[in-house]
This record gives sequence, structure tokens and C-alpha cells, in this order.
Amino acid sequence: MPEATKSDYVLGIDVGGTKLYAGVFTHSLNCIGTARKSTKSQRGVAEVIKRIAKVAEEAVDEADLSLKQLKGIGIGAPGAVDSDTGTIIFAPNMEGWRNIPLKKELEKLLGVPVFVENDCNIAMLGVHSVELKSKPKNAFGIFVGTGIGGGIIINGELYSGFNRTAAEIGHMVIETGGPKCGCGNKGCLEALASRTAIFKRLQQAVKDGEKTLLTDMLGSNLDDMRSGNLRKALRKGDKLTEKVIEEAAEYIGIGVANLANILAPDTIVLGGGVIEALADEMLAIIIETANDYAMPGVMNKVEIFASKLGDEAGITGGAVLAKKLAK
Amino acid sequence: MPEATKSDYVLGIDVGGTKLYAGVFTHSLNCIGTARKSTKSQRGVAEVIKRIAKVAEEAVDEADLSLKQLKGIGIGAPGAVDSDTGTIIFAPNMEGWRNIPLKKELEKLLGVPVFVENDCNIAMLGVHSVELKSKPKNAFGIFVGTGIGGGIIINGELYSGFNRTAAEIGHMVIETGGPKCGCGNKGCLEALASRTAIFKRLQQAVKDGEKTLLTDMLGSNLDDMRSGNLRKALRKGDKLTEKVIEEAAEYIGIGVANLANILAPDTIVLGGGVIEALADEMLAIIIETANDYAMPGVMNKVEIFASKLGDEAGITGGAVLAKKLAK
Repeated sequence: MPEATKSDYVLGIDVGGTKLYAGVFTHSLNCIGTARKSTKSQRGVAEVIKRIAKVAEEAVDEADLSLKQLKGIGIGAPGAVDSDTGTIIFAPNMEGWRNIPLKKELEKLLGVPVFVENDCNIAMLGVHSVELKSKPKNAFGIFVGTGIGGGIIINGELYSGFNRTAAEIGHMVIETGGPKCGCGNKGCLEALASRTAIFKRLQQAVKDGEKTLLTDMLGSNLDDMRSGNLRKALRKGDKLTEKVIEEAAEYIGIGVANLANILAPDTIVLGGGVIEALADEMLAIIIETANDYAMPGVMNKVEIFASKLGDEAGITGGAVLAKKLAK
Repeated sequence: MPEATKSDYVLGIDVGGTKLYAGVFTHSLNCIGTARKSTKSQRGVAEVIKRIAKVAEEAVDEADLSLKQLKGIGIGAPGAVDSDTGTIIFAPNMEGWRNIPLKKELEKLLGVPVFVENDCNIAMLGVHSVELKSKPKNAFGIFVGTGIGGGIIINGELYSGFNRTAAEIGHMVIETGGPKCGCGNKGCLEALASRTAIFKRLQQAVKDGEKTLLTDMLGSNLDDMRSGNLRKALRKGDKLTEKVIEEAAEYIGIGVANLANILAPDTIVLGGGVIEALADEMLAIIIETANDYAMPGVMNKVEIFASKLGDEAGITGGAVLAKKLAK
């Protein structure tokens, strides 16, 4: 791009297993246009990459801009990401995503510099930079959705470590010999407290003959269960849902304490779809458990809360990344 | 001290629940004189502080120096340490050690600037600076002894975080609902794999009627058991000891994997009395388990090994701290 057409607009894209979400941001990180699309990962990698390019173009159009006016694009992608080369090493929730040079492919299609990071790292970057105005020096975020991921801020910067794999907190073992995780190990936090884990526990309980209002809503197989169903069941006083959500919140609280004991943060952020849907029910238990399990002094004056950015965390973080890295 | 008498010598002191160990180091961190003393914590805090001052004087005498020639003293102390003020907040293995202003008291007795840090942080600082020549950028150490502690290096510096409590890795829960820990929680790494935990498991097994050569060495209560006894039993092919040590090594391996998944280090150090005594038996199992439990890519090209500094890690780290902080 010739120097004259460069501008300070940036685009953030959140690439998820089911949804693509893009947002155009000004230099001062105000969002001025967004677009959404389903991922359709079953159509294959090449088609998904085209859809990512398309959602980018649509967001830019919504913002009354053209691609040429973008300084850069920051992408949060699920799974293991080599952020140096912008390659998706492996994304378990997307069919065929192994060693996909996403940066290279998108730069070819869009003609704009592209930067790729792990989706939870990006979400934490968004929360830290915009919601928390970059104030926390040492912080971590736990994002609870289909899986559990995290992001770590050290000395005010996103921390990725030697192999750029840091903050794989969903695969912290907290119950040796516990339930099997998608990663192949047993007892990972993700296998105990993610939406997937919660749903599995409820389905197993129903199979074992336990009663729940969820079967009235969804049938005896609990098909198409969503976090919203759990919220409804809880508000109607469903005992089984209450027990399972309480257990999950306790596991998350233990995970928070483990991380706090290791990292001594000033700020702890909770986010992701499960927290968004069930913050009222889970947050108090998470905080109480974390305080119980943290060593004396560790939680002293530490801020712990649920992010208000919600869905916006990913696109915001992508914009922050692009703003930071695009020349 | 008048400027003219200042020198580049520093003193490191390792304050343990049973032993005090001091070493004088040159500016280039060569040890030129050491002294040892038992701690005698049952005699009360004031007496222990006097003994620390005494072991300092004896080490200086061994090095043919006088206190005036010391630039500073760095101390590694067990438990929770406020390193900003040099106060021991709480040391569970030392009688009455709560909110003890160790820095202030020792500076009064010795007339030399004193700096205090947690003992495992100090050990990691010693290993990083001297054994590893400050090369690792992001590293952690796990020190397995009576308890389990750790130290974290981030961006080449000892990391202590917001409340300066970081690296409390012995109290990472890895088996929710597991055996009770000294900290009051259940299932901490320390309650599963420290020397204390190993001894408890062996004593319980003997009570439960299991056979072991250890009872021939130590009697049926396994009184005065030491790590060396375990090594002997292992070398004679004792099955119970083998099983218990293998289990402890697996737990440590899971702890290593958890930390590697979170911190993405380039270097992982194992140390402490248990590792020193049983490295041949434990190290391979620890590394194999860590590789099994770490996420893909996390352990790629990561160095993992047992420190060779042994007992010297604490005094060396103390010297590094003093060299760094003393004006």
C-alpha cells in the first residue's frame, strides 16, 4: 500500500468454531462497524478463509470505509497459534485446521497486514487495553465457554512465553484421574467446568435417573442445550442444575486460586459465554472458593470480576493487536 | 558505613527450619568462606536472630574478612516474606515467626544492609544467575523438600508479582479432595509429593500391613526416616518404596506440566533435598509425565534438569540478591 492511503483504522476479527465476528475500530479504539457470519467449518479450510475475508469486507463496508483505509487486521483464532508466522498450528473445533498459514492467505485476499493470536489471549488483551485502560500490571483472565482458555498480562504486556503457548490454563490438571478431557489427559479444568463438561454432567445425571426441569424444556436427551437453558432452570429452582453449576464454579474457583498462587496478579478477569450467561449464579462461588484456596496474602487487594466486554472482547483485542503491530 | 570501607563482597544466608548456612562471595560470585549452625527455633525468635548474626560473622571470619567489608547480605527465609520491608510475615516451620522485621533486627546487629526474600525464590535466583549464567529468559524451578516451593523467572528477572507472593507452586491443587495439606486445603502438590507426604504415605502403608525393607532399617514406626533411607531401599529393590516414589514423581510431573502450560518457559529446574537424594529414580518419571500432560508445542526445545547447586543454591541466590540490591 502506498504511504498516502494508510490510515489509523484497524479491524479485529474473532474466529470461532461456529461464528465469525469482525469490527472496525478507530485509532482511539471506538468500534464504528461490525459484521457477523457463521463459520461453516464443515465446508473446509479454504471456504472458511474466504468467509473470514468476506466478514472483514462487510465490517469495513458497515463502517463506510474501504480495505485500503485499514492499517492492519488482528485475528483471534482458537487453538494453538504460532503468532510469529500467523499460522494456526491446530484448532480442535475446526475441521482440518492443522498448520494453516492464515496470515499469508488473508493478506493475499485482502492486501492488508494481518496478525494472528490465540483467541483467549486476544480477549484478555482487549479487556486489559480497553475495559481496564491498561492499568493492571499483572493480571490473568479465564474464559469459560465450549472450552476454557486464558490470557496472562505481565508487566502490562500480553505474556506468551518461550514457545508462545502460555496461558493454556484450561489444561491445568486440578483433579488427577478425573474426567477425560478433549486433549487426551484426565482431570483438566476444561474437563470439569467448561460448558461441554457441564452439559455432559447434566446428560449423565438424567441418564442415571435424576430429575430436572431441563428435560421439560429440551426432551430427555437434553438436545441443543444452551447456557440460557441453565439460567432458566436455575431461576425456576432446579436442584440438579444448581448442583452441577455450583460444582463447576467451585472448580473454576480452585483454578483461579492455583493461578493466583503462581502469578500473584493484581487483577483477575472472568469471561466467556458461560460466565456471561451465569455470572449471577457463579461469580460469588468462584470468588469465595478462590479466596479459600489462595495462600495468605495472595488475594490481598486483588480485583476480581466478570468482564463487561462480552462478545466484544475478541474483536476489541484484535483491534488492539493490529494497532500495536501494524507499521 | 563510610564510603571508603565499602567493598564488593556479599554474604548469602539460607535460613531453614533446622539449619542456618552462610557464604561469603566475591563480586564475581565465587564463594570464599562458609559457616553452618543449627537454627534452634525452639529457643525463640530473638535467639534465632542472634544465631543468624553469628553464622554471618563466622562465614566472614572464614573468608578472612570483616563485616565492614561486606556490601550487603541477602537472606532466603522460609514462608511468606515481605521483601519490600524485609519482614517475615509467617514461617510455619519456625516457632513464633509471625511479622518478624528480620532486615531491621539484623541491620542493627551487623551494621550491613540486609535484603530478605522467600527461600525458594532465592534458590531459583541462585540457579538462574550462577548455574545457568542468567541465560534463561522465562524459567521456573520446583524445589522438593519438607515442603514444595518454587521460583519463577520472567524476562530474565525473578518474578514476584503484585503482592510479592508469586510462585507458591506447592499449594497448586492438583487433586481436588485429595490428602490434607499443612496449609489447610486438600490436594495441594505439597500434600502429594513433598518429603512429608512421601513419609506419611509410607508410614500409612506400613500401618496397613504392607511389607517394606524400611522397617528393617528404621523400626516399625519408620522413625527418623530420611531421603537417604528411601534411596537405600530403592537400590535394594523395595517394592513399596518404589511405588510411593513413582507416585510422587508422577504428581511432580503433573505439577511441572501445569506450570509449563501456564508459563511456557524455556527452562525448568528441579531441586531440593528430595530431588538431590533421588534424582536417578525420579527425574525420568517427572520428565515423562510432564511431557505427557503438557499441551502440544509447550515442551518443544525446553530444557528440564536437576540443579547441580544443591545446598549452595540458597547462599548463592542470597549473594546475587545482595549484589543486585546493595548500593
